Amino acid sequence: MLPFLYAAWSDRHLSVPEIQALRKEADALDFLSTEDRGVLMEWSNPVHPPSRERFQQWLTSGRQAAETLPEDKPASLAELAVLLGLSAEEAPEEKHAYWAGQLAALRQLEEGLGGVREDTYRSLFPRYDQREKLFEAIREGSVAPADLQAVLDGEHAAVIQRVKNILLRPSFERSTLRIKEDYREQVLRWCKELAQEGIGALSYPVAYGGQDSMDDYAAAFETIAYHDLSLAIKFGVQFGLWGGAVYNLGTKRHHDRYLHATGTLELPGCFAMTETGHGSNVRGLETTAVYDPEHRELIVHSPSVEAGKEYIGNAMHARMAAVFCQLIVDGESHGVHAVVVPIRGQDGLTLPGIRVEDNGYKMGLNGVDNGRLWFDSVRVPVENLLDKYGGIQEDGSYSSPIESPTRRFFTMLGTLVGGRVFVPRAGLSAAKSALTIAVRYGLRRRQFPSESMRSETIIMDYPNQQRRLIPLVAKAYAVQFGLDHLLDRYVRRTEEQMREIEAMAAGLKSYATWFATAAIQECREATGGKGYLAENRFAALKGDTDIFTTFEGDNTVLMQLLAKSLLTEFKKSFQEDGNFAVLKFIGRRVGTIVTEQNPYTVRQTDREHLEGRGFYLAAFQFRARRLVSTLGSRLRAYIKGGMSSYQAGLLCQTHMIEAAEAYVELLVLEASLKRVDDRRPTNQAAQDSADDVTRVLEKTILLYAMHTIEQHRGWYLESDYISGQKSKAVRKLVDKLCAELRPEVGALVDGFGIPDELLGAPIAR
Amino acid sequence: MLPFLYAAWSDRHLSVPEIQALRKEADALDFLSTEDRGVLMEWSNPVHPPSRERFQQWLTSGRQAAETLPEDKPASLAELAVLLGLSAEEAPEEKHAYWAGQLAALRQLEEGLGGVREDTYRSLFPRYDQREKLFEAIREGSVAPADLQAVLDGEHAAVIQRVKNILLRPSFERSTLRIKEDYREQVLRWCKELAQEGIGALSYPVAYGGQDSMDDYAAAFETIAYHDLSLAIKFGVQFGLWGGAVYNLGTKRHHDRYLHATGTLELPGCFAMTETGHGSNVRGLETTAVYDPEHRELIVHSPSVEAGKEYIGNAMHARMAAVFCQLIVDGESHGVHAVVVPIRGQDGLTLPGIRVEDNGYKMGLNGVDNGRLWFDSVRVPVENLLDKYGGIQEDGSYSSPIESPTRRFFTMLGTLVGGRVFVPRAGLSAAKSALTIAVRYGLRRRQFPSESMRSETIIMDYPNQQRRLIPLVAKAYAVQFGLDHLLDRYVRRTEEQMREIEAMAAGLKSYATWFATAAIQECREATGGKGYLAENRFAALKGDTDIFTTFEGDNTVLMQLLAKSLLTEFKKSFQEDGNFAVLKFIGRRVGTIVTEQNPYTVRQTDREHLEGRGFYLAAFQFRARRLVSTLGSRLRAYIKGGMSSYQAGLLCQTHMIEAAEAYVELLVLEASLKRVDDRRPTNQAAQDSADDVTRVLEKTILLYAMHTIEQHRGWYLESDYISGQKSKAVRKLVDKLCAELRPEVGALVDGFGIPDELLGAPIAR
Repeated sequence: MLPFLYAAWSDRHLSVPEIQALRKEADALDFLSTEDRGVLMEWSNPVHPPSRERFQQWLTSGRQAAETLPEDKPASLAELAVLLGLSAEEAPEEKHAYWAGQLAALRQLEEGLGGVREDTYRSLFPRYDQREKLFEAIREGSVAPADLQAVLDGEHAAVIQRVKNILLRPSFERSTLRIKEDYREQVLRWCKELAQEGIGALSYPVAYGGQDSMDDYAAAFETIAYHDLSLAIKFGVQFGLWGGAVYNLGTKRHHDRYLHATGTLELPGCFAMTETGHGSNVRGLETTAVYDPEHRELIVHSPSVEAGKEYIGNAMHARMAAVFCQLIVDGESHGVHAVVVPIRGQDGLTLPGIRVEDNGYKMGLNGVDNGRLWFDSVRVPVENLLDKYGGIQEDGSYSSPIESPTRRFFTMLGTLVGGRVFVPRAGLSAAKSALTIAVRYGLRRRQFPSESMRSETIIMDYPNQQRRLIPLVAKAYAVQFGLDHLLDRYVRRTEEQMREIEAMAAGLKSYATWFATAAIQECREATGGKGYLAENRFAALKGDTDIFTTFEGDNTVLMQLLAKSLLTEFKKSFQEDGNFAVLKFIGRRVGTIVTEQNPYTVRQTDREHLEGRGFYLAAFQFRARRLVSTLGSRLRAYIKGGMSSYQAGLLCQTHMIEAAEAYVELLVLEASLKRVDDRRPTNQAAQDSADDVTRVLEKTILLYAMHTIEQHRGWYLESDYISGQKSKAVRKLVDKLCAELRPEVGALVDGFGIPDELLGAPIAR
Repeated sequence: MLPFLYAAWSDRHLSVPEIQALRKEADALDFLSTEDRGVLMEWSNPVHPPSRERFQQWLTSGRQAAETLPEDKPASLAELAVLLGLSAEEAPEEKHAYWAGQLAALRQLEEGLGGVREDTYRSLFPRYDQREKLFEAIREGSVAPADLQAVLDGEHAAVIQRVKNILLRPSFERSTLRIKEDYREQVLRWCKELAQEGIGALSYPVAYGGQDSMDDYAAAFETIAYHDLSLAIKFGVQFGLWGGAVYNLGTKRHHDRYLHATGTLELPGCFAMTETGHGSNVRGLETTAVYDPEHRELIVHSPSVEAGKEYIGNAMHARMAAVFCQLIVDGESHGVHAVVVPIRGQDGLTLPGIRVEDNGYKMGLNGVDNGRLWFDSVRVPVENLLDKYGGIQEDGSYSSPIESPTRRFFTMLGTLVGGRVFVPRAGLSAAKSALTIAVRYGLRRRQFPSESMRSETIIMDYPNQQRRLIPLVAKAYAVQFGLDHLLDRYVRRTEEQMREIEAMAAGLKSYATWFATAAIQECREATGGKGYLAENRFAALKGDTDIFTTFEGDNTVLMQLLAKSLLTEFKKSFQEDGNFAVLKFIGRRVGTIVTEQNPYTVRQTDREHLEGRGFYLAAFQFRARRLVSTLGSRLRAYIKGGMSSYQAGLLCQTHMIEAAEAYVELLVLEASLKRVDDRRPTNQAAQDSADDVTRVLEKTILLYAMHTIEQHRGWYLESDYISGQKSKAVRKLVDKLCAELRPEVGALVDGFGIPDELLGAPIAR
């Protein structure tokens, strides 16, 4: 009887016909005892509704009974009552006929109550609810995850799938390896398996076992990052950093000697650049390589403890190291060069003169063997100098194709910018994993009974939860489009584009990794205590990616690099075009006419206006342009006032970072809008479905734009670019867009295409 | 010779007399070879200054040589050159006289160069630099850390020192215990040692081995949190949650039976409230305790898997559990009550009907044994019901001193609010640890050569680094003052103040734990790769505290609780005083006349105005009042428009959280200002020193206020409370305050009084 009482009262008030139905039909039910019948009459008295405690008790008993129910959901409450009745019997088989006979009476009762609402049913029997609700969430949305995935994966779908298939093998199953040595061994084994499949060498020339495809390598790398970030980083160190140094800084001699064995991981190597005393300051490295003309050898030496190579990935497994040091020939230093130094023999033991120290446990990435390295006058043949940009001639003299030491230094460093193109992709993969877990959990988890006690509301229906997660999902899409644009530019780069691409990479690396840190944190908090359990992945995602904002260049330093490069470009455009360049800069670059701060626009708050690019794209452009131009003016004013340019730069650090961020955001928005625009003409065939996908993507990017403007609303208000009313209108639009995307959010995260097995988290299943 | 060349060139240009001095004196130096002399002449040619690479090389060689130098710093560069010369000899003793003879010539050279600047000297020999710089930083400031510590510790200084002394014992030394079982055993041992010293029972009555001091217990708890957060939490679970349930919900019978053994940890217990299916919704708990009148027993039962007790601290070590469940007497539910259920025997084995499951690894706190608990019709005597607020009579009927089940529920829950008073203190301790490590590191670490190549700038001198850390240090002070105020109110509470104190605790718990999460993250990033190493503590601080925003009530839920309570009070004041109450609310509470948005004030940007309470305190009050009043209006409008109050509440979630935050910030600011004001009259004795401390504290709190207004500048601008110009002026003032507090920041973090041994991090030493 309990389900009926619960159902009846869950609408809070019983109508007179309902009460009549309840009382009348209850009379017809043989299985009720006299006592039960009395209780029922009393409880169905509308003057004395059951207490809250009583109600809770029914719910509890109902759920308890439901534990014994079959997997498949019965068609009606009546049938369910029969099943419950049967399951309460000592020998249910014998009573089957009896209970079947009750079905009709129960059905009448159910009808008398005006039918039982689906959500009442579900709240009473949560076991039927979960799958139901999931199904419902997907049905509500207008797009299929596969269509979104097709957009994100693009032309790399094949290699992504290929890597996923490898990662889904039993050999890649995760286990809790708390001791770093165990974990490192596992990661090394995984890395070898990937190498055997040719994944590590994807970017190398075909002659060395590769496929000459940097794109595919990038796609593989970001896919590996779904599985395990230690694996992704070790993979990147071996094939990207060590292999990349050999490939980009070395010449054919080095390629022939090392590249094939690097791709197969027969020759594990490391990339020894950073020193303890010099984090972000590569130019100031203290390790020396002194040329000894007599033996035609280089003597690699760490002059002090602080000059030790710090945080070197693969340090405990590597047999080779690409060591960055000041090259000294005939008493003269020629600046930073890389030298290949064998550090371990085939037997795995360190060679003479090499000292290695384990970095120990870290906040995360404990599957990566980071260590410190010192060299005590280690001699290597001069051929070990990676000499593409500077080498030692037969006659013992130094020569370089690039005369200026500064240009040489930046050219060499520029070839290593790949790390900054790849790391943000791994960060984004981690953010996508976190968002998928948190959103799926939010679509299942309930909290607090809603007012009608019908069911606890699913978390994702709380506006606050939508606000927490949906803008982050939108930003993940936008950031991916931005990173895709960067990758494309990087892969197809020419020599003269390098400075721009380096600046872009510096900015996007910072933006994407800061986003990853923030998104993962928000997801952990949004999943409460469940999110804190290691099994649900946030611990690893958070701990592993936390260093991304630091390595491959500290974000705050990188953002200042970008700002300086923007200033240079700004000055250039200024000199070329006279005063108007100030306005044209960036404006010209994006090819859009900027609507300026006229008093009408500043106050315009209708949705049509806000959703138009004339507002939001212009707002992004305005911010980027204004922050760079005011930065330039401020620096000039300080210097004119007698300050050194160094001091002036220090004072403007925060301004620089803000200007760089504005530029990156504009870049991300433009890349995203272009991806949306590009979809329009090409999808004539499957127009309907394509239109839905385009529409959802458009709204997603719009949310990214509005949310970004909202975050900077202090600045926009200060700059009189928007009025207070307009700022509020933007906030309301963000709320609205979150609500409108709520039905799509399941598909949006499923569109990331992360297999359940790689996701791992039980709360996401 | 190198030190001299470096010194001479580090000023970038040599004057003609300097060059003459260099060349002339070099002639007099016997130890220079002819070749050396030639090089020197060439390099001292102002037309061809040495290249950047050469310069770097000098620096490197100089530093390398300096590795062999004595600990104590020589008095001059000349003496240093002699020492270097000596250390380069095969048999230095024999050459001593010779080198001593060179001293005069070298001194003349040094004078010829116009003396060598202290910072040149230091950059060349960093080993002498570190201690020097540290000393300098402390010398620059105007306050002694001990004076600040005296303010923070207040009257709890003795117990804090007592606990520190225990924690500094060798038995408390930290070790890397990666396997949870090992770590848990260690934490249990530590907990027992603290219990043996009477620290666990501090808050219990003297009759049960305690000292009847909740204050001292709080001070002990937050001190333990400096050492190890797992220990702090386990300590809190045993003595605060389990012991607190017995003490607050039980009667003398229970106190006599359990309290003494709880305080000594002879009886480990746990607090079993949360269920898997009901995170923040305590009222909806499904575990039942059904009274069996025949045996005078309670049958404690988990009706479903989801009704299992989740995340129970001490679950693997506890012998007792305070189980929260729906009490059912004679078929009727009386709502949530707590029952003491033995879960393990003396032998440590679980008792019949009890199922325990380890929660496994978590993001942090792996020294705490969290687990899940299920009860399968477990029978306990009715005496085990903790019956202060509701019990079962001899005749088997239920009775309670509080008739209304709702009031009873909230009264019972209210006694458990202690957790929300304590957890934020542990969070704050973790934030203080992180800030101390990051600031000390920032005061030592250098990065990039400054323009003159004289030395790399210490990180803390970068405005960006100051911006990152100093406002957080200021906020730590403000939050402590806020938490002290809460603790004081809590300890001295009366029955009728409970609702207000609960609301306050909910808000401050959220505010302080969110602050801890953000501060620790910022500190990790501000220390770069070093901060990522486990040895430097951030991994533990971050991982351990991350759950603080969730447990003892999810922050977003707690903030909504606070907002609802503010609304109630707001409505009350509205009814009492008519329409004017809208303006008086909060304004009245703080007893300050609020200066409103007049067009002049909105635009006033002079520092004197900004630094006056008439601006910043009024701004805090305005925000708190306005957000509550607009929240009320919005809710009323929605409900008037036909929406249910539940739906209306959902729509206003974000608004609620903002209103609650504004209230907490006002509370924190007021408590802080009061602490500063209270210092003024009482410190006549040592006026000078006291004034400095007061001045620094005042500036610190001013920074907290300005930084908070800056963070909400979007809102203030939207509300036309400040103009764009004024908003910019606030930002500049924050910059300025950071710079002004820069010399004090070392003392400010040292004032937290965390012993080096508890801090642990090598980078902080």
